[in-house]
Amino acid sequence: MNHLTTMSELSTAEIEELLREAKAIKEGTARADLAGKFIANLFFEPSTRTRFSFEVAEKKLGMNVLNLDGTSTSVQKGETLYDTIRTLESIGVDACVIRHREDEYYKDLADKVNIPILNAGDGCGQHPTQSLLDLMTIQEEFQSFKGLTVSIHGDIKHSRVARSNAEVLSRLGAHVLFSGPPEWQDAENMFGTCVQTDEAIAASDVVMLLRIQNERHQMESDQQGYLEKFGLTVKRAENMKPHAIIMHPAPVNRGVEIDTTLVECGKSRIFKQMENGVFIRMAVLKRALKTNVKRGEASYVLSH
Amino acid sequence: MNHLTTMSELSTAEIEELLREAKAIKEGTARADLAGKFIANLFFEPSTRTRFSFEVAEKKLGMNVLNLDGTSTSVQKGETLYDTIRTLESIGVDACVIRHREDEYYKDLADKVNIPILNAGDGCGQHPTQSLLDLMTIQEEFQSFKGLTVSIHGDIKHSRVARSNAEVLSRLGAHVLFSGPPEWQDAENMFGTCVQTDEAIAASDVVMLLRIQNERHQMESDQQGYLEKFGLTVKRAENMKPHAIIMHPAPVNRGVEIDTTLVECGKSRIFKQMENGVFIRMAVLKRALKTNVKRGEASYVLSH
Amino acid sequence: MNHLTTMSELSTAEIEELLREAKAIKEGTARADLAGKFIANLFFEPSTRTRFSFEVAEKKLGMNVLNLDGTSTSVQKGETLYDTIRTLESIGVDACVIRHREDEYYKDLADKVNIPILNAGDGCGQHPTQSLLDLMTIQEEFQSFKGLTVSIHGDIKHSRVARSNAEVLSRLGAHVLFSGPPEWQDAENMFGTCVQTDEAIAASDVVMLLRIQNERHQMESDQQGYLEKFGLTVKRAENMKPHAIIMHPAPVNRGVEIDTTLVECGKSRIFKQMENGVFIRMAVLKRALKTNVKRGEASYVLSH
Repeated sequence: MNHLTTMSELSTAEIEELLREAKAIKEGTARADLAGKFIANLFFEPSTRTRFSFEVAEKKLGMNVLNLDGTSTSVQKGETLYDTIRTLESIGVDACVIRHREDEYYKDLADKVNIPILNAGDGCGQHPTQSLLDLMTIQEEFQSFKGLTVSIHGDIKHSRVARSNAEVLSRLGAHVLFSGPPEWQDAENMFGTCVQTDEAIAASDVVMLLRIQNERHQMESDQQGYLEKFGLTVKRAENMKPHAIIMHPAPVNRGVEIDTTLVECGKSRIFKQMENGVFIRMAVLKRALKTNVKRGEASYVLSH
Repeated sequence: MNHLTTMSELSTAEIEELLREAKAIKEGTARADLAGKFIANLFFEPSTRTRFSFEVAEKKLGMNVLNLDGTSTSVQKGETLYDTIRTLESIGVDACVIRHREDEYYKDLADKVNIPILNAGDGCGQHPTQSLLDLMTIQEEFQSFKGLTVSIHGDIKHSRVARSNAEVLSRLGAHVLFSGPPEWQDAENMFGTCVQTDEAIAASDVVMLLRIQNERHQMESDQQGYLEKFGLTVKRAENMKPHAIIMHPAPVNRGVEIDTTLVECGKSRIFKQMENGVFIRMAVLKRALKTNVKRGEASYVLSH
Repeated sequence: MNHLTTMSELSTAEIEELLREAKAIKEGTARADLAGKFIANLFFEPSTRTRFSFEVAEKKLGMNVLNLDGTSTSVQKGETLYDTIRTLESIGVDACVIRHREDEYYKDLADKVNIPILNAGDGCGQHPTQSLLDLMTIQEEFQSFKGLTVSIHGDIKHSRVARSNAEVLSRLGAHVLFSGPPEWQDAENMFGTCVQTDEAIAASDVVMLLRIQNERHQMESDQQGYLEKFGLTVKRAENMKPHAIIMHPAPVNRGVEIDTTLVECGKSRIFKQMENGVFIRMAVLKRALKTNVKRGEASYVLSH
């Protein structure tokens, strides 16, 4: 069963294969490779970007799309996520994309369901397609990850992006720096080194800003002054290396994580990231549905 | 106009024809028989199963699907259901699937609108496609309904499923038993006999459990002890006939109507019911749109 | 960039071309002229009619449709409308249909985004496709606008329809009358003359009723007596010219703006308006996407 729940479950070879496939899709013309297949998008947290990015990817592949938003469903009637997925499976759904408030919601599911689960974000856990699109954007810029310095700025502790990316970037040979408010640093994340904001920005090939997640922290007041203390100001951007790029998973809080004038500046790859997200998700969907084996059969990955 | 609002409006011959059609669809390959047609799904109560089951059925038939959920529409602006349907008709919608809180919401509509209404559940009234998929599941198991004993357990009084099923099962030659808390029995439902839970389970070929509808009753506290008193425990299941099956319209309240370990046991047809629902709905959609006659013309059913 | 935000931005020649195109579409058979294109429907206010009318139009043209309703999106996370549209653009969306609570929400956007914005209603501002479908319905009836008397009844001041229609009807040669409660008249709207209700109705070729927008005014109590004082009663309808027609943008408050028995009478074109709305929106979508030029390039309109 080709679930995709975390980056760590993907071997380096599989990551490279997904990046290659996404690049081929981007350069070619979309073909309805999954025509007639059914996909369900289950978003139990609000999302524009990720949900629509998946939906565009799905429709470009010719899939039939079912959208379930967490507020209008039987989940309200107390049904477990397991029963919801088994239901979708029974009515002919071929794969599920899930965003859920709970960390590792997929943990007890993955072995019990017969259709692939594509994790579109779990609580403060992972967001693997976001990681993959970040990798694709970095690769387009620098070809290789070896020897790159990538600094991640902000709420390292609660960020799905930080968690997914630090591990995989280290694995691929990049040097990862963390920066931001000390109380948001994550002592358990061993894949990066904590440094001062100015130092991180000057040293980086990739400055990766994280979103301050108001919907998690309720700290409007703390946003005051965040830009000056920890964000990417125009002045700090002037200290970036000439070839260095700016990334942000979006939605951007303009004037908080980044000065509003920098969002679409020459160094920014923020909208390029979104563009690449569609191709990554097409590659991930193709991977999920090409090698769909039945429960009980041996689980294997086709080398395609 | 081929509305489908209650089971009682279907002749036995029509029911048999729908079951035959659904079986043929299940055994064959889906064809986009209704390609280019527009369908609107109007769900004024939350639903996962029924809504998605209809949506899969519609898309397998090639239809264009409009989803209207009751909270984000002009119905909020005080528009009547009649005007909403006439609007949909005007913009080119060919049929409507409706779930509504109100009993017999369709009563004053059916004669006045020009597109078929497919009832996906009205208040404590009927749910004809659920009945049909139950019949299909029973027929797959026992071929005929004649002489079968079917017991229905739970809130007989407020259940759409109990109402639809008891009438039609009696008509088809089955013997219907009701069981559950005395205050939930329905003196006006003449199609079954009220007996004790243990007696009903031991006598049945089909044990049909009903959902405790918390969203209607607000009685969390009463769920305590329900399983032991009126539900299907492991011990009671051991007293079932060897060939007997377990059914439930879902979503299941695990540990309330049924012991959680029985939900996917060998006797359970719960997920099979869901699977069959798609084929039944395809058959119902084909029936609704094949013989769509204009208002004022004679209403007839093609023998196809 | 072929945005459509107000009626006044359309030249008379362009309006005539859109009406011709809509008529041709209505008389012909729908072709999937925009197959494979992606459209996003962004409705930040509830709507049945307009949203579904656009969705039917889009799907008849073969488009892939993304529906974003304002309550379940990143807009909740504080994202600006500009960033939302740039996001949609990045993931491959070709055009946006937007309904928004704010007057002239499009003002600062139109020059900055690269995909056409089709305004489906802005606050108390404009609703150009509603105007166009009104024009189409009038033209079907009277061929020309020259010399027609059109009276608009109700809340002139807060009505998008009144604002869009008065300007364009005057421009096309019709004589516009306003009527209704004095406090709802709009001294700044120079395109019509304010007269008494009875006088307006007797003089009109087209009696155009506006909806009392409870969701804006909170004045249930004021609806009492509105019909008698300012609405279209059966008695007033008897004073209409023999060939005159009744129009209403809907949803109708039956018994408030109009006697319920008149809604579907021989003079009413209310459901005809809705029918025409689909063809108008197909014409508008084709216009928006046929001449989609890149930002920075000269903006021009193909004479097709």
